[in-house]
Amino acid sequence: MAAPKKIGAQTRWFQNPPVILACATIVGEKEGMGPLGHTFDKVIMDSYYHEKSWEKAEQRMLQEAMQMAVERAGLSLKDIDFMLAGDLLNQIISANYTARNLEVPFIGLYGACATLYESMALGAMLIDGGFAEYVLIGASSHYATAERQYRFPVEQGTQRPLYAQWTVTGAAGMVLAQQGAGPVITHATIGKVVDLGQQDPMNMGAAMAPAAADTIMYHFVDTGRTIDYYDLVITGDLGTYGKELAQRILINNGYDITPRFTDCGVLVYAPEQDAHAGGSGCACSAVVTCGYLRQEMQKGNYQHVLGVGTGALLSPCSSLQGENIPGIAHAVVIEAN
Amino acid sequence: MAAPKKIGAQTRWFQNPPVILACATIVGEKEGMGPLGHTFDKVIMDSYYHEKSWEKAEQRMLQEAMQMAVERAGLSLKDIDFMLAGDLLNQIISANYTARNLEVPFIGLYGACATLYESMALGAMLIDGGFAEYVLIGASSHYATAERQYRFPVEQGTQRPLYAQWTVTGAAGMVLAQQGAGPVITHATIGKVVDLGQQDPMNMGAAMAPAAADTIMYHFVDTGRTIDYYDLVITGDLGTYGKELAQRILINNGYDITPRFTDCGVLVYAPEQDAHAGGSGCACSAVVTCGYLRQEMQKGNYQHVLGVGTGALLSPCSSLQGENIPGIAHAVVIEAN
Repeated sequence: MAAPKKIGAQTRWFQNPPVILACATIVGEKEGMGPLGHTFDKVIMDSYYHEKSWEKAEQRMLQEAMQMAVERAGLSLKDIDFMLAGDLLNQIISANYTARNLEVPFIGLYGACATLYESMALGAMLIDGGFAEYVLIGASSHYATAERQYRFPVEQGTQRPLYAQWTVTGAAGMVLAQQGAGPVITHATIGKVVDLGQQDPMNMGAAMAPAAADTIMYHFVDTGRTIDYYDLVITGDLGTYGKELAQRILINNGYDITPRFTDCGVLVYAPEQDAHAGGSGCACSAVVTCGYLRQEMQKGNYQHVLGVGTGALLSPCSSLQGENIPGIAHAVVIEAN
Repeated sequence: MAAPKKIGAQTRWFQNPPVILACATIVGEKEGMGPLGHTFDKVIMDSYYHEKSWEKAEQRMLQEAMQMAVERAGLSLKDIDFMLAGDLLNQIISANYTARNLEVPFIGLYGACATLYESMALGAMLIDGGFAEYVLIGASSHYATAERQYRFPVEQGTQRPLYAQWTVTGAAGMVLAQQGAGPVITHATIGKVVDLGQQDPMNMGAAMAPAAADTIMYHFVDTGRTIDYYDLVITGDLGTYGKELAQRILINNGYDITPRFTDCGVLVYAPEQDAHAGGSGCACSAVVTCGYLRQEMQKGNYQHVLGVGTGALLSPCSSLQGENIPGIAHAVVIEAN
């Protein structure tokens, strides 16, 4: 007896596709000044968000975005079956303290920058599996907290190579529901960890591109679909060079998605904002998916979207011990409804 | 339309209870010398396990335990739908690199020391929901990697208070299946993050006890069961003092489970091993559940077990910023079959 909702090795389909009932986003000043600035619900001009540390600021953004999503859905926290969330900070503290404050049953995740898409995939399975009516998901990152944990304190003013990306300061919340109005999630493709030997902690795009390409290919193989089915394939945070690399890997494998392919990290900053290769971080795919993408689908500009969260499994500890930085990518199919 | 597999606020039941098809465990020398030594599959005498770092040793243990579980289930890695795993190291590197080496679709989790039980609960939902036939789960910890990340380098010889626990060095793998021979998981109760203001990073038992008591109470409330239904309630790693505290909270709330209550952290070391308040760490509940508990159930000594994974959401960063250390606990009902 095979699993009835399985298509191919990595893809699952949903009998009653869960609905993206409501979304909310908060971003920092740089993101608010970027080309997608008008698509976000709230822009904070103080990187500390009136808190005593950047970590506390990040947690506050996540909590506020998740609460806002619940309110927009016309629900109260008591209606939420499960909260699925994670972030880039060690021990996912932004998500933990948010779960503590919201007092909702909590399933903690770590999917690096792919966390929102990991949550969407899992949340959709929990709803379609009959275990939840409403799932609250969320993810956050903060430029200053990520830089000091993963690379150098920002005060140090370390030179950034041009292929480096800029961690998005922001947070997003999303309510997935068994029924209601909104775009639906029809499929999820769970990714494998892919390692092509990248070792430079400044070059996240190159670490994630092979995983993104792998998951997109397996999605096509599993579903028997081609790029023709989709209006848009949008990856999480490959950035300029990572996107190009993923494109090239896909072309080399016989899948040319170039004309319909974009990346949240490419969209989120303008070239004159000096973010080098574009945005990255959990918040990158989270705020662009919950802001820009959802609004474009609502306007009818996209009907069939393959969203692909991408994560670089960067660890300062394992990097210093000579290990590579592998990547992972999880995809979901979002259909306008 | 409520979620059909929901009982009460936090508990879910399984229509076709997933089977614990196979388990495997590896532990370090101290655990091998302890009272449960004979229940583990492999004892490693070298804390480096022939690797260049303790982190690499931990990853190797996790990978070996997970592979061993797959072999024992009579399966190959190609049969595994999803791998769900996590560990205590930043960015869950033991799980990430294991997933890379096993090349299985991977869902990364962070549930602190409750990770194995979070994986069991989620894995059971994915199987009963129709999304997977076989789910491979696992968790690991290592005394030396955890101490140097969360507290002090072991070489420093810092004095440990008597209420401190000892992080278990070990790893366990488990295969959950849609059908087959073995004990089954009939219910899961997902916990909330509970914070009673504990701030001492040496006292994990006190941080976790309120969450353990909360989840156990909600399990009874949701299912309408009392302790009479269960032969055994076994928590993950409360240790001597945490167990006592959880017991007291439960009694104060009208639930006296004392005569049928034990804790993996209390069982894993003997008093003369100088582990103070007992074992802790992801591997504590993982190796005792996959070793001792599974064998006792096989022998017929326990029929109805409530297993409760417990996690302290300790973060050196947030602790230094004055935050509390909250706890979380996830429970599953395991029935002999």
